[in-house]
Amino acid sequence: MSAFEARIKETAALVEAALDRHLPRRSGPLGRVVDAMRHGALDGGKRLRPFLVIAAADMFDCPRERSIRAGCAVEMIHCYSLIHDDLPAMDDSDLRRGRPSVHKAFDDATAILAGDALLTQAFEILAEPATHPDAAVRCRLALELARASGREGMVGGQMIDIYAEQKNFDLASIEELQRLKTGAIIRFSAIGGGIVGGAGEPEITALRQYAEDLGLAFQIVDDLLDVFGDAVSLGKPVGQDADMDKATFVKLLGPEGARDKARSLVDRAKSHLDRFGARSDALKGAADFVFARKN
Amino acid sequence: MSAFEARIKETAALVEAALDRHLPRRSGPLGRVVDAMRHGALDGGKRLRPFLVIAAADMFDCPRERSIRAGCAVEMIHCYSLIHDDLPAMDDSDLRRGRPSVHKAFDDATAILAGDALLTQAFEILAEPATHPDAAVRCRLALELARASGREGMVGGQMIDIYAEQKNFDLASIEELQRLKTGAIIRFSAIGGGIVGGAGEPEITALRQYAEDLGLAFQIVDDLLDVFGDAVSLGKPVGQDADMDKATFVKLLGPEGARDKARSLVDRAKSHLDRFGARSDALKGAADFVFARKN
Repeated sequence: MSAFEARIKETAALVEAALDRHLPRRSGPLGRVVDAMRHGALDGGKRLRPFLVIAAADMFDCPRERSIRAGCAVEMIHCYSLIHDDLPAMDDSDLRRGRPSVHKAFDDATAILAGDALLTQAFEILAEPATHPDAAVRCRLALELARASGREGMVGGQMIDIYAEQKNFDLASIEELQRLKTGAIIRFSAIGGGIVGGAGEPEITALRQYAEDLGLAFQIVDDLLDVFGDAVSLGKPVGQDADMDKATFVKLLGPEGARDKARSLVDRAKSHLDRFGARSDALKGAADFVFARKN
Repeated sequence: MSAFEARIKETAALVEAALDRHLPRRSGPLGRVVDAMRHGALDGGKRLRPFLVIAAADMFDCPRERSIRAGCAVEMIHCYSLIHDDLPAMDDSDLRRGRPSVHKAFDDATAILAGDALLTQAFEILAEPATHPDAAVRCRLALELARASGREGMVGGQMIDIYAEQKNFDLASIEELQRLKTGAIIRFSAIGGGIVGGAGEPEITALRQYAEDLGLAFQIVDDLLDVFGDAVSLGKPVGQDADMDKATFVKLLGPEGARDKARSLVDRAKSHLDRFGARSDALKGAADFVFARKN
């Protein structure tokens, strides 16, 4: 295991433990919604978004108890969006991370409410004084997360993904879609770490530039994985995009072109962090990890 | 029209105009989610919850532009909950306020996303500096609203309403359900008005006591209207509770007993405001209005 792999695993374990504490079990019907929230939010894999929050905050010597809280908030937003996206009315996915999705393990009504409750709790966590002693910092976190996840961010991207005639999309349209659907939350993660860590505006700008390139690279690699199963080795096709009519980065650029674009975006993402020197090794490692990931 | 009726109409018009400004139309798929949010949030009737926010804030000479923003936030929470509750997976209601519900006017996916976006925007509005120059006030508003509307508040109440064996409920269980499902947001509305208006803690406590009694009275009147169509005249039955097995205030107390309980709760709610003198006339009028309402 590389030093980076060890670090992302260690962070994921911290986030998992914190999410577990934020979602204490209860009895009765209130217990049912908590169980559904736990099903959708725990055992959650890499925890890339909280990793970005925490690694960015670490650069400014932010106490971990603060950055982990901000990381939990963004992960709750990510997990609520997966729960709602999996619903029959949306993507109708029965499986998520190899387990039944929340509406299969419970039912549609419980999944809707569990998603609503996770979305709400994200803002509860950010607004609580334990996240940062300065209310202005907490408010800015809440404001940036709301903008990243609402109708001009993640939800808007999901609407475009469902309703736009994507077969006619050109590269600029796909980039705009992904900037909203997946990019906005990744961007929040990096700058949110800077905000909770007390970074200055030039430093937050550098984090934003890093995250914008990283978010796009993340999505291009997703497209490659969807076709080939392995973005780097470019082996034989192991999957197909569910909707053959959809324009994707792979279709528009070709596999080699998409891979080259992801690689150059990752390199540029890292270059935005040069001002931070060795302090940015974790975030640079995350960029390489996004490019090399197998799932 | 009574002075109170004129006042609640005037406030509803201010809230309607503000919600319209918070939800500017757009083109394309992003326009579709905004249209669905507008369908669910505009032309919304009495606006009782924003009225409580604004009337409570008025007692402390709060600038209206601040209290209207806080009122819009709570109304967005209320409207998102109606959009999600109406979904086929939940109450499956095709009509809302005499118009097609959002999932009928659009579709289920759009209704889910429009609800998510309204929920998110409520916190965006509270976190924005225009709501109050002091970030500590904005954070407290966001924290109180999140607690009122999440799994230990409105969402939790909805879970109990769907999954509890309510035919066996006693009076204490029904009161607990309603304290969460409808009471928590009404409670937030009154204390949120105090918070944005700069009320002291004893004043906020009085507002909380007022709102707790008012919220319970509101629900008892709802039960009466569901059976008789008119809570005050107690005319012949015009409707039936959809689920005959459910325990309600009317079933447990009888029509006269329920009416008496609502009346005494309204009187007690008003008495908590005596400390404010004539400044509390609007909130006292709201309590009488809740008792006398016909729909």
